[in-house]
Amino acid sequence: MSLGVDRARLRADGTRLLGRLGSLAEVGAIDGGGVCRLAFSDTDRAGRDRVVGWMRELGLTVTIDRIGNVLGTRAGREDLPPVILGSHIDTVRTGGKYDGVLGVLAGLEVIERLAEARITTRHPIAVGFFSNEEGARFAPDMMGSAVHQGTLDLGAALAIVGIDGATVGDELARIGYAGDTPCGGVRAAAYLELHIEQGPVLEREGFEIGAVTGVQGISWTEFTLRGVSNHAGTTPMSMRSDAGYVAAEIACFVRRLARGYGGAQVATVGHVTVAPNLINVIPDRVVMTLDLRNTDDAAIQRAERETFEFVAATAAAEGVTVERRSLARFAPVDFAPAMIDLVEEVARGHGRKVRRLPSGAGHDAQMFAPHCPTGMIFVPSAGGISHNVREHTDPAQLVAGADVLLEVARRVAGE
Amino acid sequence: MSLGVDRARLRADGTRLLGRLGSLAEVGAIDGGGVCRLAFSDTDRAGRDRVVGWMRELGLTVTIDRIGNVLGTRAGREDLPPVILGSHIDTVRTGGKYDGVLGVLAGLEVIERLAEARITTRHPIAVGFFSNEEGARFAPDMMGSAVHQGTLDLGAALAIVGIDGATVGDELARIGYAGDTPCGGVRAAAYLELHIEQGPVLEREGFEIGAVTGVQGISWTEFTLRGVSNHAGTTPMSMRSDAGYVAAEIACFVRRLARGYGGAQVATVGHVTVAPNLINVIPDRVVMTLDLRNTDDAAIQRAERETFEFVAATAAAEGVTVERRSLARFAPVDFAPAMIDLVEEVARGHGRKVRRLPSGAGHDAQMFAPHCPTGMIFVPSAGGISHNVREHTDPAQLVAGADVLLEVARRVAGE
Repeated sequence: MSLGVDRARLRADGTRLLGRLGSLAEVGAIDGGGVCRLAFSDTDRAGRDRVVGWMRELGLTVTIDRIGNVLGTRAGREDLPPVILGSHIDTVRTGGKYDGVLGVLAGLEVIERLAEARITTRHPIAVGFFSNEEGARFAPDMMGSAVHQGTLDLGAALAIVGIDGATVGDELARIGYAGDTPCGGVRAAAYLELHIEQGPVLEREGFEIGAVTGVQGISWTEFTLRGVSNHAGTTPMSMRSDAGYVAAEIACFVRRLARGYGGAQVATVGHVTVAPNLINVIPDRVVMTLDLRNTDDAAIQRAERETFEFVAATAAAEGVTVERRSLARFAPVDFAPAMIDLVEEVARGHGRKVRRLPSGAGHDAQMFAPHCPTGMIFVPSAGGISHNVREHTDPAQLVAGADVLLEVARRVAGE
Repeated sequence: MSLGVDRARLRADGTRLLGRLGSLAEVGAIDGGGVCRLAFSDTDRAGRDRVVGWMRELGLTVTIDRIGNVLGTRAGREDLPPVILGSHIDTVRTGGKYDGVLGVLAGLEVIERLAEARITTRHPIAVGFFSNEEGARFAPDMMGSAVHQGTLDLGAALAIVGIDGATVGDELARIGYAGDTPCGGVRAAAYLELHIEQGPVLEREGFEIGAVTGVQGISWTEFTLRGVSNHAGTTPMSMRSDAGYVAAEIACFVRRLARGYGGAQVATVGHVTVAPNLINVIPDRVVMTLDLRNTDDAAIQRAERETFEFVAATAAAEGVTVERRSLARFAPVDFAPAMIDLVEEVARGHGRKVRRLPSGAGHDAQMFAPHCPTGMIFVPSAGGISHNVREHTDPAQLVAGADVLLEVARRVAGE
């Protein structure tokens, strides 16, 4: 009970957390309440400087590795690998205030609160932000955590050219974040990430905390359909090779498929271009994309197979040809059952309405999952909106998430 | 039997007709074998000059009216209204050699052949080309015949501004075809038009001549669908308001509808734009068009009603809003039954495989149909292709069409 702190029921200081969130949101602020801090840009540097400043104020040992990942470590009672509380502070071009940032600043809050309570954990606790999670300027996304965990080669990553022609290595050096710590030099005892859901499930179903079970696998396919362009008035229905019609049937099919599979299965036709795109001409060319996701890789494979069969049969019946190109394919990632249980148990203990759910979006956590016990905590996203200046989470929910992160981190790091 | 002509079995001089078609195709010739003679352009003037030159060589009385319609008339035995053999010589930007031109030059061939056979018909026969049938530079299409038949006001037509900022009146004066004959000063006893089909039906079904029953009615509608743009990974299927999915259901519905109605019903979704059009974002906005055509106006009205009901219900179920805008609406036009019968009878008498069919495209003939007995003769379009430099009709089929026009004109004009 020293310092008036109830050590058994330690909670985040909400005012301080919200203050830091507000402060970091000033860096790269854009109209409408959003943020633009593209990876390795001047605003990214300014954001990094601000967070590193806080780390130093808290007396953390700051290391920067060769891809620019920053860790601020508070020593533990024993010389063990740290429990990493991580996420990212880069954003998409029209990003929100909490995507990524919440996990990093809540990590700082965890450390500050433990320090105030004079609690030293058995494992060190490190707060980390990983470079270029968004991939908005330099593909691929989750670049820093991928290099950190050995999935992506450092040299290859540094050579990547961005949408503006700059390279990762040059930009990293330019902003002063090409560190000298070897990538992956720090292995984690565990990895924890608090993040906004970026989807509507928690809000719509009235939950306050999500115990994330893993990250969905992704299959991205592009179809190019070629039919015959003809006069909309003079060509009978039976004599058409209408690429637009085949595209429509595909979009309806994948909706039925996803509804039929149920569970975590989602299917989205997000991109469609039609040529010649004239009111009175039958389309002869459509390029369309399909985004399939599921937590179950076998289900993704089955969805691909069934869709491809449908596409081939429907196109052939219409006299339309199909070119198919895989644009991306990632297997699902499962988080450690013990971590999922723990998040759920802690949240329930805090009186929070909690449900398990998979993440539909990618996160740094998925790079750690194969190598150490990994868990994620979600807080609701208002309207499910993210990657948008209107991204919003209720302040009380942000703090509730930090509370859960604090207690889970404390238990995982041991006392 | 004078001059070695079998007057009872009079046929077109194919070589001469094909020669004139080739000659006129040189005016505004473009790469790929096509023609560009936009209405009231310099190439339109050059084309007009060439046809008027042939009219004068044939000794026809040439009149030019105030909207630039040109008639070349051969006197009849009696002072009666003429039988007009008409069409147009303007083209779209990448037009073919026969669209419109065939009807005009076959008309000249009819007159020349009658003269060679020393046949004077009871009614005068006039060959006409009507201004700006295509509407490619100045909307609306069928402008000259519409003014001629009183559907469109002359002053309004002359004031129309084209896609390049020029006005009809100025351009008509500039090319020297602002005539002084009052529009509609010449009333027709009958109107006959030979034209390429611009569709695939005759070719696919092995017919050489089409006895055109009328022109389909047209309904053009634009739908603007607005849903909610969200993350393709994090938004469960049950929580989507996907404007793209609703658009796909509409496109599939109208295909089923058209197949279900059968007959002349066609339905085309030619234009679709999707926003934000990103692979991993659920579309929040789609603008799409629907082109419905049928010879039966009640069927068009029913198709509209059923489609609009489907659109409303499907959008509402998905949480998508709909704005609907009518872009065009024309009632079907029926040609005179006696003309349809006559074309069929003459073609059959020539040993041609003939079928009745409606026109899916608009033609000058439809402006005459309410005012005088009107008929059209179609010849096949290879691959159904038109408004394209690859537009093609077999020379023998072009001549076969002119043969039918000759005999139909002769019978209608009387001897």
